[in-house]
Amino acid sequence: MGELALSQYLEANKGRIVASLVEWLRVPSISAEPAHASDVRASAEMFARLLREGGLEAVEVLETGTKDAPGAPAVYAEWLGAGPEAPTVLIYGHHDVQPVDPLEQWCSPPFEPVVSNDKVFARGASDDKGQMVMQVEAARGLLATRGKLPVNLKFLVEGEEESGSPHFEQLLLREAGRFSADVVVSSDSTMESPQVPTTTVGYRGLVAFDIEVRTAPVDLHSGIWGGTVPNAAVYAARLAAALHDERWKVTVPGFYDDVRELTEEEAASLRALSFEEEEYLRKAGAAFLVGEEGFTPRERTSTRPTAEVVGIHAGYGGPAMKTIVPATANVKVAMRLVPDQDPQKIAQAFRRWVDVQLPAGVERSIQQYGGVLPMVTPLNHPSLQLLSRAMERVWGKPPLFERSGGSGPEETLARVLGAPVVSLGIALPEDHFHAPNETLSLPQLWKGILAAGELLIELAALKPTK
Amino acid sequence: MGELALSQYLEANKGRIVASLVEWLRVPSISAEPAHASDVRASAEMFARLLREGGLEAVEVLETGTKDAPGAPAVYAEWLGAGPEAPTVLIYGHHDVQPVDPLEQWCSPPFEPVVSNDKVFARGASDDKGQMVMQVEAARGLLATRGKLPVNLKFLVEGEEESGSPHFEQLLLREAGRFSADVVVSSDSTMESPQVPTTTVGYRGLVAFDIEVRTAPVDLHSGIWGGTVPNAAVYAARLAAALHDERWKVTVPGFYDDVRELTEEEAASLRALSFEEEEYLRKAGAAFLVGEEGFTPRERTSTRPTAEVVGIHAGYGGPAMKTIVPATANVKVAMRLVPDQDPQKIAQAFRRWVDVQLPAGVERSIQQYGGVLPMVTPLNHPSLQLLSRAMERVWGKPPLFERSGGSGPEETLARVLGAPVVSLGIALPEDHFHAPNETLSLPQLWKGILAAGELLIELAALKPTK
Repeated sequence: MGELALSQYLEANKGRIVASLVEWLRVPSISAEPAHASDVRASAEMFARLLREGGLEAVEVLETGTKDAPGAPAVYAEWLGAGPEAPTVLIYGHHDVQPVDPLEQWCSPPFEPVVSNDKVFARGASDDKGQMVMQVEAARGLLATRGKLPVNLKFLVEGEEESGSPHFEQLLLREAGRFSADVVVSSDSTMESPQVPTTTVGYRGLVAFDIEVRTAPVDLHSGIWGGTVPNAAVYAARLAAALHDERWKVTVPGFYDDVRELTEEEAASLRALSFEEEEYLRKAGAAFLVGEEGFTPRERTSTRPTAEVVGIHAGYGGPAMKTIVPATANVKVAMRLVPDQDPQKIAQAFRRWVDVQLPAGVERSIQQYGGVLPMVTPLNHPSLQLLSRAMERVWGKPPLFERSGGSGPEETLARVLGAPVVSLGIALPEDHFHAPNETLSLPQLWKGILAAGELLIELAALKPTK
Repeated sequence: MGELALSQYLEANKGRIVASLVEWLRVPSISAEPAHASDVRASAEMFARLLREGGLEAVEVLETGTKDAPGAPAVYAEWLGAGPEAPTVLIYGHHDVQPVDPLEQWCSPPFEPVVSNDKVFARGASDDKGQMVMQVEAARGLLATRGKLPVNLKFLVEGEEESGSPHFEQLLLREAGRFSADVVVSSDSTMESPQVPTTTVGYRGLVAFDIEVRTAPVDLHSGIWGGTVPNAAVYAARLAAALHDERWKVTVPGFYDDVRELTEEEAASLRALSFEEEEYLRKAGAAFLVGEEGFTPRERTSTRPTAEVVGIHAGYGGPAMKTIVPATANVKVAMRLVPDQDPQKIAQAFRRWVDVQLPAGVERSIQQYGGVLPMVTPLNHPSLQLLSRAMERVWGKPPLFERSGGSGPEETLARVLGAPVVSLGIALPEDHFHAPNETLSLPQLWKGILAAGELLIELAALKPTK
């Protein structure tokens, strides 16, 4: 049936698919770095071309933000030939990528993709360009082999996901009619392993902070002033060190107040996922585990909120030594939130905490990033059952349900579009998301294309409500 | 007499003196940065020229280190025409300078000197090129006005002082005969203020550490791994935060064990120096004082040992946010030591402390820098009395005796050459040593040249012992 035909299509097109992914991966679409703004645009244009070549229609690069404060462009496309009796599926993902430092740890340049050992090495390979190619090729394959799609299909692929999607909600609100769908399929997540298919039913929220600390106008000579004047590096270090107590609880007052208990079913699904500590540590390259007392590692990374020190920078960091008392310091903290924590409420609590931690006379300013609400899709939702069937057909067993430790705009999609969000994510935990030597597993890509096709076929069973 | 003649010489030569200092300050002789090795050499050559033009003889750029591991060159010169009945004075200073970052805080480029408002703005203006020009011009002025010097004079001006003088002791030992002197005059220090002349009778020792911390081979995605894997930034921050307790005592066990009590005379001299907290804070640009409980700010910066966090760097420090768990971190710590602390013993204690602070499984490596012993010249030494007279003649009152909070190779000079070390330092606390916008006060330079001349005349009273 459809499956066989799609797999034949796939066999005949693997070379072309890898080549087009590699071409796209050459574009350094780092949304967090203003210098790469034109690359993010080039990335959008290139993905628009891939959508057109795949048979999608009404392809458009969508501006975001305002004229005075423009955001990075998103890409939209649709194929509405299934008619009003068929449901509408919106595919979500992103075409921007993370920054690449520390550059010296990459085995090959991040934007010169290498295909080796059944993997593609490049920034963005799995997060998220590879998964977007997966979705386009599924649609293209179905169109090529069947002449039409079983559902009405829309693509909305943004260019600011790695910067916290600052204009995404605005864009959704502006074009809610055009984007309306019966179900959203997000492809921007990982699965447990090729042997243990999983699907993500929840995402943590995100709020992050950039704290500037200043103790003097300029660095001071440590021989002349050291021992009497405040040292910005010390106050920054104390802030970072005080963020967790000895049980690895986040010390910000009220941080855990609004955390919702898991349902029985959610807890059971989480327990069904295995955890091999040795293998987990090997993948991370870490020597030991840390984390909130009283919770398992899986809970700590998915159903519990966390606060991570993303960076701390103060004083001299060059070769040899400089004998100074640093005058300024910077600490970046990223918090992952779970239902029903509210980013704005947490941000207020964090600001109060910083003010209490730092003595008067230490200047501080706090910049807030993100503000993504956490979300979770109920396990008994019909879309999840259809996704489960599609994945079982490709990976040989139904997926386990897990919650992502990561944060995405899935909450915004569900909320603004009023549609359930399910996830078909084929990246693997060892793909080095956000780190040097990011990879995409080609066997996962091929299975993912088949599964994305199967999913569209399954979702045709949904009743259109819009 | 000599004084009048020297002041007349000075009036006639101010323009030339400033011009030659400015030319020298254009050479970015940053000894800590290997890329500037040729500039350090150019600086040595230029200073050798100034010495020759000043009438000094046997001028030589001296190599340091070994052929395989060369150090930065020092400069030597002498004038031995006073004969064997006259004492020999060795002038010590350095021609290398500190690094310049943060570059963006400089009002003018650090190696494009600006003369404005009776100050010279440039890296090295007061530390130490200005003070070396002061010594050369004093000798030049005496030679020009008297035809000879009252003492035998030697210059030894090194090129690695800002890197902890790694080859200086080796050089002294190698050429101890050539450098032998009855007294060493160091000009690499500050005085209290133009209204309160002071001289430095002691220097703190220095030992510094560069600690690398690693928790994983690469940074990890904070959404996937955050909350379970060790975070290098957190361990670095905890290390830096744990260095002092709530009384600002250094927590390294045994740190204070060998600190020698002050003599009555030393304590009295220290008490005679005023301390204006408001003015002190204004100069530092700080809002409040910190420091070891039970000691005054003056004690904390001169007679008490300290440990300063010079830098801490981990994770992402660029614009916006990156959601990672940092895998590596760097902490730099510089310790100032007082008699009778031993840098090697302190280093061992520090290494043990770091090992106790970091959990097993957090990789760490510690690089040690410096290892300068603390030193102090007894207040009743004849050389100090002669220095006092010379300074009184120029600044109108005798200097108070203070101890420098800084560290220098003065201990090595005293120990290897077996000669007392006195200091004629004319830089001011507000000259921004080691920081952006370093300055030299021209009125202090002019007084310093007169005082350096007076000092040579006074020191002629010493009996030669070598």
